[in-house]
Amino acid sequence: MADKTYDVVGIGNAIVDIIARCDDAFLSKHDLAKGFMRLIDAAEAARLYEAMGPAIERSGGSAANTIAGLASFGGRGGFIGRVAADQFGGIFHHDIRSLGVAYDTAPAIDGAPTARCLILVTPDGERTMNTFLGASVDFAAADIDRDMIAAAKIVYLEGYLFDREEAKAAFGEAARAAKASGAKVALSLSDAFCVDRHRADFRHLVREGADIVFANEKEITALYEVNSFQEAADAALQDCEMAVLTRSEVGSLIVAKGESIPIQADPVAKVVDLTGAGDLYAAGFLFGLSQGLPLPACGRLGSLAAAEAIGHIGARPETSLRQLAQASGVLD
Amino acid sequence: MADKTYDVVGIGNAIVDIIARCDDAFLSKHDLAKGFMRLIDAAEAARLYEAMGPAIERSGGSAANTIAGLASFGGRGGFIGRVAADQFGGIFHHDIRSLGVAYDTAPAIDGAPTARCLILVTPDGERTMNTFLGASVDFAAADIDRDMIAAAKIVYLEGYLFDREEAKAAFGEAARAAKASGAKVALSLSDAFCVDRHRADFRHLVREGADIVFANEKEITALYEVNSFQEAADAALQDCEMAVLTRSEVGSLIVAKGESIPIQADPVAKVVDLTGAGDLYAAGFLFGLSQGLPLPACGRLGSLAAAEAIGHIGARPETSLRQLAQASGVLD
Repeated sequence: MADKTYDVVGIGNAIVDIIARCDDAFLSKHDLAKGFMRLIDAAEAARLYEAMGPAIERSGGSAANTIAGLASFGGRGGFIGRVAADQFGGIFHHDIRSLGVAYDTAPAIDGAPTARCLILVTPDGERTMNTFLGASVDFAAADIDRDMIAAAKIVYLEGYLFDREEAKAAFGEAARAAKASGAKVALSLSDAFCVDRHRADFRHLVREGADIVFANEKEITALYEVNSFQEAADAALQDCEMAVLTRSEVGSLIVAKGESIPIQADPVAKVVDLTGAGDLYAAGFLFGLSQGLPLPACGRLGSLAAAEAIGHIGARPETSLRQLAQASGVLD
Repeated sequence: MADKTYDVVGIGNAIVDIIARCDDAFLSKHDLAKGFMRLIDAAEAARLYEAMGPAIERSGGSAANTIAGLASFGGRGGFIGRVAADQFGGIFHHDIRSLGVAYDTAPAIDGAPTARCLILVTPDGERTMNTFLGASVDFAAADIDRDMIAAAKIVYLEGYLFDREEAKAAFGEAARAAKASGAKVALSLSDAFCVDRHRADFRHLVREGADIVFANEKEITALYEVNSFQEAADAALQDCEMAVLTRSEVGSLIVAKGESIPIQADPVAKVVDLTGAGDLYAAGFLFGLSQGLPLPACGRLGSLAAAEAIGHIGARPETSLRQLAQASGVLD
């Protein structure tokens, strides 16, 4: 795979994050389930935004965060996702390209505005996400850049996008194009509710299209409708060649044919905001994999990147992940 | 003044800050004078944004930062400034109101988009600002909310806005309305280049309209075309009742009839970003003044707020300034 232009190409929602702190009472008052993502419409987005405290805007989106993290490790990334031709679309476009990531998806001229995610961060660092998908929701096969996929070692699909028929079809096409060009396909399950809504389609994609599945404990048990983590891990391995399962402060487990590798979580001095922890774990893991590192090193890079993200507000790394990995001896 | 609704009403540019780090070589390459603000047009804004690194967006504007700081002290603030009816205008509107500040200026439906300021922060913490004034530039007398001004103890005018004839006329009207209702008028000179461009008009406004002038050393010496800080301070006192002069790490000097009060700068563990230091100094000072505190206490509140702003990226306080002031014993 050494002659490929991109280490990883991500496909996902192109979102501007609007992040504010709140207390638990605010979540209760607005009937929000802590730690989960829900989809909201434009009217609810306006209502909740009005009620929220002072916020900061950052570009976000799960797979986009992962590719931003990959770039911070020095990896070569590409991203495919749909914005509108508006101010938030301009922010997204600037931000991801300024990291050295290739991003050429044409902005939509008509229709809904660029997606935004209202993220409420409680004092315990949990983030409760309210996503208005806007222009992102109309992602379809026409938005798939086959040349970019053909130039990738790994194609990374964000499960959040898997909520509409057109996007599901686009994911199927992307997976086939990736296989045809010899790229590995990685899939993140993203959200237990999303898995619940589309269980059969997710299982089909994991079985037929994905080589590697990323999930946390809630997501993988939701996918296989089992009660224990171990049962879920065993089931995943029937469907694809590798499952990378994260368990918050317990660490993560890499399950592949014939091996099961536990990875410790990195210590975090102060949990500030869990936003992006899973996305950045995937960044580290995929960077390692794209460089041909052994699986334990891939997992350590994932833990290191997740810990960096947890230590500050927002999902994008604030320091060079390559330098952090060098300082800790995982990279030369 | 005890029965007024607002402690301070600010009038200034309504801007979304777009903040990125850069090195000195970037400033040289793009021919930018470190530490200064310059006005740019839409084409230059697009060109520079394209070249900048990853950025965060915050709502900003000098007087708006001051009123945000006032609110963090527990002061009652109002703001008057012009945005467009677009996404950045929405951010500005949300942000300032979410702090408890009254803000009712109607967004412009036609014309230029909401103003933005591309702020480049070098490793020494200096900020170099490139402002596209957009909708803000058309601020005029029609935007002045006379009821809000009449309800203020102090009206605070941002010098940056003083760059066009319509805005100058609006400032004149605001100053007259303030006097008529018994409000004090404070004026920030904002920028030495802006003072250079409009020296005669600034001197007229200081002499005829302002009770209190805020300036740093560069600005006050530019206003009076003198070489020494002391000459400038003496000249200012001929024109108005009080001058509040900031000198970065040297501290500040409050000059009033018959007294000259030096104020120490508060220690800063690490200078991260000087953006907003002057704006937050004014917030502390004006909050103290509006509460009837003695001038040395007003200055100490200013120093405390400036130090808080310098310790992080961006111009808005990240912790409660009231609690900081209570912890340091300046407020009960």
